[in-house]
Amino acid sequence: MKKRVAVIGAGPSGLAQLRAFQSAAQQGQEIPEVVCFEKQANWGGLWNYSWRTGVDEHGEPAHGSMYRYLWSNGPKEGLEFADYSFEEHFGKQIASYPPRAVLFDYIEGRVLKANVRDWIRFSSVIRWVEHDPQAGDFIVTVHDLAADRVYRERFDHVIVASGHFSSPNVPEYPGFDTFNGRILHAHDFRDAREFAGKDVLVVGASYSAEDIGSQCWKYGARSITSCYRSAPMGFDWPANWEEKPALQRVEGRHAHFADGTSRAVDAIILCTGYRHVFPFLPDDLRLKTANRLATADLWKGVAYVHNPALFYLGMQDQWFTFNMFDAQAWYVRDIILGRIAVPADSQALMADVAEREAREEASDDTKYAIRYQADYVKELVAETDYPSFDIDGACEAFFEWKKHKAKGIMTFRDNRYRSVITGTMAPVHHTPWKEALDDSMASYLQN
Amino acid sequence: MKKRVAVIGAGPSGLAQLRAFQSAAQQGQEIPEVVCFEKQANWGGLWNYSWRTGVDEHGEPAHGSMYRYLWSNGPKEGLEFADYSFEEHFGKQIASYPPRAVLFDYIEGRVLKANVRDWIRFSSVIRWVEHDPQAGDFIVTVHDLAADRVYRERFDHVIVASGHFSSPNVPEYPGFDTFNGRILHAHDFRDAREFAGKDVLVVGASYSAEDIGSQCWKYGARSITSCYRSAPMGFDWPANWEEKPALQRVEGRHAHFADGTSRAVDAIILCTGYRHVFPFLPDDLRLKTANRLATADLWKGVAYVHNPALFYLGMQDQWFTFNMFDAQAWYVRDIILGRIAVPADSQALMADVAEREAREEASDDTKYAIRYQADYVKELVAETDYPSFDIDGACEAFFEWKKHKAKGIMTFRDNRYRSVITGTMAPVHHTPWKEALDDSMASYLQN
Repeated sequence: MKKRVAVIGAGPSGLAQLRAFQSAAQQGQEIPEVVCFEKQANWGGLWNYSWRTGVDEHGEPAHGSMYRYLWSNGPKEGLEFADYSFEEHFGKQIASYPPRAVLFDYIEGRVLKANVRDWIRFSSVIRWVEHDPQAGDFIVTVHDLAADRVYRERFDHVIVASGHFSSPNVPEYPGFDTFNGRILHAHDFRDAREFAGKDVLVVGASYSAEDIGSQCWKYGARSITSCYRSAPMGFDWPANWEEKPALQRVEGRHAHFADGTSRAVDAIILCTGYRHVFPFLPDDLRLKTANRLATADLWKGVAYVHNPALFYLGMQDQWFTFNMFDAQAWYVRDIILGRIAVPADSQALMADVAEREAREEASDDTKYAIRYQADYVKELVAETDYPSFDIDGACEAFFEWKKHKAKGIMTFRDNRYRSVITGTMAPVHHTPWKEALDDSMASYLQN
Repeated sequence: MKKRVAVIGAGPSGLAQLRAFQSAAQQGQEIPEVVCFEKQANWGGLWNYSWRTGVDEHGEPAHGSMYRYLWSNGPKEGLEFADYSFEEHFGKQIASYPPRAVLFDYIEGRVLKANVRDWIRFSSVIRWVEHDPQAGDFIVTVHDLAADRVYRERFDHVIVASGHFSSPNVPEYPGFDTFNGRILHAHDFRDAREFAGKDVLVVGASYSAEDIGSQCWKYGARSITSCYRSAPMGFDWPANWEEKPALQRVEGRHAHFADGTSRAVDAIILCTGYRHVFPFLPDDLRLKTANRLATADLWKGVAYVHNPALFYLGMQDQWFTFNMFDAQAWYVRDIILGRIAVPADSQALMADVAEREAREEASDDTKYAIRYQADYVKELVAETDYPSFDIDGACEAFFEWKKHKAKGIMTFRDNRYRSVITGTMAPVHHTPWKEALDDSMASYLQN
């Protein structure tokens, strides 16, 4: 009997896993039967845009946190697939901060080429996973939402690739229950034009706050107020953007801040992060971790220490993304294929996690953090046949990106970087980001 | 060993079930151990207002469809508990269309008096229910969200009281993915003031469309457009409210209708109904029914014909509400206590369902439908010790209500009716509904 592997989710991580197995098969290796379960009707995970918010057409929590007009907030040179370059996909080099549709097309291009779409069961949500200690395998309960039918299958391995930017962390502040405008989490933000002419409060000081605030500003919000708990973002904001300390309460339309000031706002957008949520997993299989570079309980960042036949992909906080998911997927594949051995001693697994945690905590410096994750990617890539690439070069792109952001938060996307896969310099985009209202692929590729 | 009964949900139906068992215990009957599982942190179901939309603080789909400023859209004389009158609760008779806070207080008052709060495990979502044919019982998998702990318990009976106005039916229309305003389902509607000065489109022609449109109108929307598939609501709408035939597509800000007309709108509110969704039930236990008076597969409207140890409460489309849930809860209690026998022959169970369906389908007349459901309530009440009450009188209140709505959709709530429990006439409310912007309990009780 062939081994059977369940992959939960067909976003960037899950698709990387399919490509990893397909790549082995292409080289003549025997591979297990791989079944990927995807809740949505199409692949791409967060990159599969939907106007839906709340629950989807089947009553399941909407997966999407993607909004219209989103352009990558980091250079594509930091996330390029080592086995499938942007030049291979588009037939030419493209500018460095692609909008969503372009990145979706790129992600899809690789898996279309790999011809793995029929490994995926779409509109299929996992209701429950259970480990059977007698048989040594997993019983997976699946709800086929299209047919409204529930069934069970057994798998030797389960790979959780359902992401962790999908289930919002939604704090409550006093007065929210009587606020007279709209309160939404970044997860439910869709079209910045809805906020044109409005006074918008974004709560938070990380990537969502920065980018959603910038979107609203770009598409005509009257003012942006952002507020932070620990430190301001500190960018050189436009005149109608003000940073305030922590939100304390809301009264009517007025938001009150820790410095005693207040401001009337029409909408409150909670850019307060996401949570690792796995409603389909029991206590003995469910990862509980903060959003950090060294996740809890994952040996080599992928194998669940309490049951190493179970894997998690992409659960780390991320500087590196697509290429890190690839490194993880190739690594997990090789564990399953028996090419890489997981230590039998659970103390050894835990020690690996502890070492990674201690090393992450050794410094608060951003460059240190980027290099830390680069080292992790290098470590995994070195042990598999994933094409090696200039990871230090990708770090340099991130360092440049950080400088470009500090120089101009509304202009950093006008910069360009050199591909570490093909060595080609990206073109300058034809229109500065803050004037580029058309985010279509056709427009973006006109370089 | 005492029998164990699981009640899923602590809304009006689930609470009725707790009160039914407590009432038997009060009379000296031996009752099973009853455990009620409630996903939210408080009881009241839909009447437990939350500003949250989408998913809740634990990542679970937000249960609430309740919005601010909601006043009952039918007379309280049609829903009064026969064992706990409004006069008993408030110490006096109150006006006929109470706002949410008043009804919440009333629902809560009865179960506070019954002292059943500690039968409920709050913040506890059911992940899975399974029937064990060997043991003849049910295995219930519970996620204690506060402790983030999953556990299992066995129950002899499961009573599903999780409601069916919580999981929205969300259709897609061409152009939704590029609409530049807000699209939301009625389920996510919270504060009508958000739409002051806006052009609002409500899609649908049933209670949500009528009431949410009216709320937006009352709180200052610039215009309301509503659209229907089969027939207009046909009320005498205010000047800035227009009824259109079916929505066909959206382009930019413009909604296009089946009559070839179009209209620019700022927000689209989908009042397109709800679905019976039970993500915690396998195929052999999961009710699949349309929203109708004669639900599929429920003997006497409560016992699941394919496994009559499993019950559903309140799954019918509803003219009668709280008092019908009571009638059902008392009936289910008496089946579990062995006072009422469920026929062993499954053909007999199915025949009961078929008879109810045929009888419902015999007429499209509204009065017929109201009387049909009144007969159902009478049928159940007659077989238990639930206090008998003047159900025909309640029908008369509904008939009057229908006339009052036809006479004035923005004034019908200014009418009053006689209690069928205490015989007392309700006072006229001190302020006409369309001028009453304060929906607090303190304001409402100043009669």
